[in-house]
Amino acid sequence: SRELLVLTYGALVAQLCKDYEKDEDVNTCLDRMGYDIGIRLIDDFLAHSAVKKCCSYSETADMIAQVAFKMYLGVTPSVSCSSAAGNEFSLILDKNPLVDFVEELPAERASLCYCNLLCGVIRGALEMVHLAAEVTFLQDRLKGDAVTEIGITFLRKAEDRKHKRN
Amino acid sequence: SRELLVLTYGALVAQLCKDYEKDEDVNTCLDRMGYDIGIRLIDDFLAHSAVKKCCSYSETADMIAQVAFKMYLGVTPSVSCSSAAGNEFSLILDKNPLVDFVEELPAERASLCYCNLLCGVIRGALEMVHLAAEVTFLQDRLKGDAVTEIGITFLRKAEDRKHKRN
Repeated sequence: SRELLVLTYGALVAQLCKDYEKDEDVNTCLDRMGYDIGIRLIDDFLAHSAVKKCCSYSETADMIAQVAFKMYLGVTPSVSCSSAAGNEFSLILDKNPLVDFVEELPAERASLCYCNLLCGVIRGALEMVHLAAEVTFLQDRLKGDAVTEIGITFLRKAEDRKHKRN
Repeated sequence: SRELLVLTYGALVAQLCKDYEKDEDVNTCLDRMGYDIGIRLIDDFLAHSAVKKCCSYSETADMIAQVAFKMYLGVTPSVSCSSAAGNEFSLILDKNPLVDFVEELPAERASLCYCNLLCGVIRGALEMVHLAAEVTFLQDRLKGDAVTEIGITFLRKAEDRKHKRN
């Protein structure tokens, strides 16, 4: 089933590249589609993973890497916290199955975030469990980086900040 | 992984519906994309299924239903032969996981073959094992039919016909 997913995803990206001239527009579109998928996929995830409520951002990041990525893509990224505030995390993928059939990006598509759908999926799924986050690719092996790195920045809630101030 | 496939496929169909006004054009595009996927997916199928060479059209149809559908979509259609010549088969699906998130087709998309990618995948994969076939949806639950039925017509090879004539 994963192989069919990877090829279907490839067809989707190829279609968007036909539709939009600018890489940025393709990236935005993939992120938006991913968001729509994430807000629906979360139910499936919670039903099949039987995970408990996470008590910290760090636990949430581990859950995404160790349970969600494993479940849907069959790989487990390593997680590192990249801010003293404890709300920024990196998921580092040595192997990204979604690009199994992609040799390299064509020269005219150098700014394409081929897997940007994943960022949207994570953002959408987190939103459904009341966590606002920014999710972006920080490194991408398709662009010549040594690894593929997805950055997740949890945005502190307004109430949290208010609470701290008082 | 299957859930992510179903949602990603939905995003692809939705995008094509934006791109093409006519259902026929969306159907053609899905079939063509499926074909491109099928000619690549066959390697994965042969590698993971460890099936032997089929000796008849009937065996091939059973293989598609019992091994390939099971492997990629998690369902097993029933197979029936629908021609005296023994080259036309129907795969009948009581449940089609690809439409799990589709309630019904919108009125303005009444001619859409939502799952037409599957026809292309089967056609492409068969072609790679030197079997020419026509693959189309004959019935579709999304269109109010009682079941979903995919018709496969194996096209006899030119040599076969020549051989018979002599």
